[in-house]
Amino acid sequence: MAIRHWELAGAEDDRLFSPNCWRVRMALAHKGLQAETVPWRFTEKESIAFSGQGLVPVIKDEHREVHDSWAIAVYLDDAYPDLPLLFDSAQARSLALFFKHWCERNVHSLMFRVIVMDLFGSLHDKDKPYFRESREKRFGKPLEEIGAESHAAVPALRAAFDPVRPLIAVQPFVSGSSPGFADYILFGPFEWARAVSPVRLLEADDPVYAWRERMFDLFDGMPRRTRGYPI
Amino acid sequence: MAIRHWELAGAEDDRLFSPNCWRVRMALAHKGLQAETVPWRFTEKESIAFSGQGLVPVIKDEHREVHDSWAIAVYLDDAYPDLPLLFDSAQARSLALFFKHWCERNVHSLMFRVIVMDLFGSLHDKDKPYFRESREKRFGKPLEEIGAESHAAVPALRAAFDPVRPLIAVQPFVSGSSPGFADYILFGPFEWARAVSPVRLLEADDPVYAWRERMFDLFDGMPRRTRGYPI
Repeated sequence: MAIRHWELAGAEDDRLFSPNCWRVRMALAHKGLQAETVPWRFTEKESIAFSGQGLVPVIKDEHREVHDSWAIAVYLDDAYPDLPLLFDSAQARSLALFFKHWCERNVHSLMFRVIVMDLFGSLHDKDKPYFRESREKRFGKPLEEIGAESHAAVPALRAAFDPVRPLIAVQPFVSGSSPGFADYILFGPFEWARAVSPVRLLEADDPVYAWRERMFDLFDGMPRRTRGYPI
Repeated sequence: MAIRHWELAGAEDDRLFSPNCWRVRMALAHKGLQAETVPWRFTEKESIAFSGQGLVPVIKDEHREVHDSWAIAVYLDDAYPDLPLLFDSAQARSLALFFKHWCERNVHSLMFRVIVMDLFGSLHDKDKPYFRESREKRFGKPLEEIGAESHAAVPALRAAFDPVRPLIAVQPFVSGSSPGFADYILFGPFEWARAVSPVRLLEADDPVYAWRERMFDLFDGMPRRTRGYPI
């Protein structure tokens, strides 16, 4: 039986933009596990109430429910140790957890500033009041005011990738010769952006651009085929 | 035969303050390898000319010379695979390389601002003109001007550890249940500071403080016993 994966969607069911759901989407493909997407909107809290909380990603595997992208990745390696591993050792898992916290603090926050108005425009109408209210509360200012800084955030976003560049200059993936969960963590914000925004995030001569191309090509090009703007 | 390790020293031979040499000092202890420190000063370029460059750490193991702390760590695991590993997998090695670049960009630069005048005062007299000239050129201002910002840099330094805190809140070391090279990378700047400066870097209730205590206790307390200021 396929694993069911509740994924955040925009106005259209196939506009999948959550960076954390993308981590899980890539992790499921990495493991070669069959998965069925259940499109979900921010305000559909009751439909995932079985998980005991109100955010996606959530997966249901036979009778087991797991939520939170990190917990899902750990679960998948633990439950399916004979399928390709997301983490190839205990130390790799620890350092990927550092990478996650680094990425959320340094990349997600800037990406949000770059794409916020495009993101808002891509939401299902029923989600818009929830999104505006929760994000304006978190940032302490109107969405439009955050969005007004979006051009200034692009150079800062590019600079945020500085500690990644020396790695992908000498090897194809952040995780080494093949992709691991850390790559999917870094890739999440790029699919978040591509799903909702035509903004040009990277220059073509940036090693991060070449890495992202390699990521788009994984799993027979699944990431590139998913609905979004041309890169 | 013991491995010879050229380590940066201050006015006294046992004031060992280089964060990159500390990585190697900890890595040698981790492997359980006998090592002999050769105290070295910035201006003693000719004494390490055999390495084809002018910076420490440099090690000589039998007839093999290795320089650069990262290259030395990789060499030690490759040359001594049966001794405790610094990296427990290929992915762990890649993610530790990310951690190194993150640490140098975010921690080393702020630590330098905090301790620069204490550091300058601890140098061997013959190194002072070299240090002043090279660092003033790099930062584009007099040492005293960098040092004048040192109090402002302490809160920024504490904030720089944010992505580490969630890890060491749930496990004893950055690398997991036992220390790995990533821990030695993060520990380097703390010994750099302790060797030359009485400045209080961390509050006692900070998880980073507790982690640092665990690091001081490694290898029968070798890191704590090395010459430096009380914490």
